[in-house]
Amino acid sequence: MLPKGNFPEKVYLNGKIVTADNAKISVFDRGFLFGDGIYEVMVQLENGMFYKKAHLDRLQDNLDKIGIPYNVKEIDDNLDGFLHAAGLEGESCLIYMQVTRGVAPRKHAYPKNVPPSVMMYALPYNLPPINLKNMKAVLEPDFRWHRCDIKSISLLGNIMTNETAMNANTDEAVLVRNGMISEGSHTNIFFVKDGNVITHPANEHILNGISRQIVIKLCRKLEIPVIEKPVAENEIKNMDEAFFTGTTTQVASIAQLGHHVFYENDAIGEVTARLQKAFAELRKLDTSQITL
Amino acid sequence: MLPKGNFPEKVYLNGKIVTADNAKISVFDRGFLFGDGIYEVMVQLENGMFYKKAHLDRLQDNLDKIGIPYNVKEIDDNLDGFLHAAGLEGESCLIYMQVTRGVAPRKHAYPKNVPPSVMMYALPYNLPPINLKNMKAVLEPDFRWHRCDIKSISLLGNIMTNETAMNANTDEAVLVRNGMISEGSHTNIFFVKDGNVITHPANEHILNGISRQIVIKLCRKLEIPVIEKPVAENEIKNMDEAFFTGTTTQVASIAQLGHHVFYENDAIGEVTARLQKAFAELRKLDTSQITL
Repeated sequence: MLPKGNFPEKVYLNGKIVTADNAKISVFDRGFLFGDGIYEVMVQLENGMFYKKAHLDRLQDNLDKIGIPYNVKEIDDNLDGFLHAAGLEGESCLIYMQVTRGVAPRKHAYPKNVPPSVMMYALPYNLPPINLKNMKAVLEPDFRWHRCDIKSISLLGNIMTNETAMNANTDEAVLVRNGMISEGSHTNIFFVKDGNVITHPANEHILNGISRQIVIKLCRKLEIPVIEKPVAENEIKNMDEAFFTGTTTQVASIAQLGHHVFYENDAIGEVTARLQKAFAELRKLDTSQITL
Repeated sequence: MLPKGNFPEKVYLNGKIVTADNAKISVFDRGFLFGDGIYEVMVQLENGMFYKKAHLDRLQDNLDKIGIPYNVKEIDDNLDGFLHAAGLEGESCLIYMQVTRGVAPRKHAYPKNVPPSVMMYALPYNLPPINLKNMKAVLEPDFRWHRCDIKSISLLGNIMTNETAMNANTDEAVLVRNGMISEGSHTNIFFVKDGNVITHPANEHILNGISRQIVIKLCRKLEIPVIEKPVAENEIKNMDEAFFTGTTTQVASIAQLGHHVFYENDAIGEVTARLQKAFAELRKLDTSQITL
């Protein structure tokens, strides 16, 4: 039996739909032994799954990067049926998906001819059109690996860092590698300076978030110049605005980052507010088949 | 049902002994969702468990480092009973142990009041007194995180690196960070130069292997000077000998590292051979209660 908590009712597990209590995998699953898998999170809103194709494309891309032989079409084909079974057809919900390299005797070497393990679940989830939370974040050394472009379930570095944010009563930990801001423990970070939007380039030091890519597209549409370069920790004080992006974070204004206070009150910077509004407008469309 | 393969017959799982087929954990275990756990591997030899206390102390130390509230005494108390049930009492075997932060709804923040998940199993395993394999290894960039001192199950970086060694038909991948040799993907590495033994210091860039610590103690006993400093990639060619250490690797001579060939034939360096012999001698003792 599961402990008390906000678990889903149903879980999709290797082609079957089971109750959460019965959603069990072998202790020899490489997800459990090695963190050897990829995950993805997306949301279903009023007008369908928000950028579903973009999320599934990224899942496929990540599985390809680490050589897990799986075609995400299986997930796409089963998603509607699963949401129906879970009583969440057409409902606002959060969808979590995870694919691991499957069950094999514990050896570092990739096993041959082993089917990947596939798990997904959905939880009712209401996202307000605009995230009005004014975030506070701590700055922490980025001690994670150098392939943060891979959305891996080997997340101990991220959760340890996130815990420092929790212990400091803040919302997020922002990571600093060699003096440069990379990203949050589960968000991307943007700055605004003199009307330009600045964010870390999508290289191996950050996860190229779907929301990050959407915001860059919105900037282009709104004719806001985007500069993809890392911002130094000691440049934060010179920035005009800062915001986080993420699937559930959406676009969230940063009120305080480390010791630097952007806003003493509930003010939100002009560019951040414009992007929040433009991001919210996307919900009125069916974005499920848009590629990024 | 498990696929075919060298699985154990029995698994210790959260206080129960079950068949391997029935050894299943919730998909909401944080080991499966976040790689949020610690593992340990040790061997039982002719005269008991080789450095059992040292391994269990390290397991405890690692759990403490990442704040998993678990006392390894439970494992120690159940080990003999489990080996008896598994038909491996007094037999040469390999023992794998893993503790994760337990089952909770997926959120980065550490859950409160959740019991850790504990799993162990044992497999018949014969270790020759001396590892006579002459290892070949590739050199690979060390893109892992910066807390390699933690024996975490978030191992994707290690297994990806190990795979490059497998694909190159070699035995191990040796990691290079900022031009300096750190360790192997699942071993520590030592060099010998002018009668001195040189190895990376036990900081956050390597796992402080039990066999590594044993070898350093043996060097002191044999009056071989030990220098704990990183060796640069471009110094390899100036080294006289090199060897790996590890729980199942023991002390293994390196015949080739990257492009540098130490031995064209089955020769083994003098210091390596002395340490192999001294390491083998330890098996004649009961080392199970020795601390390092």
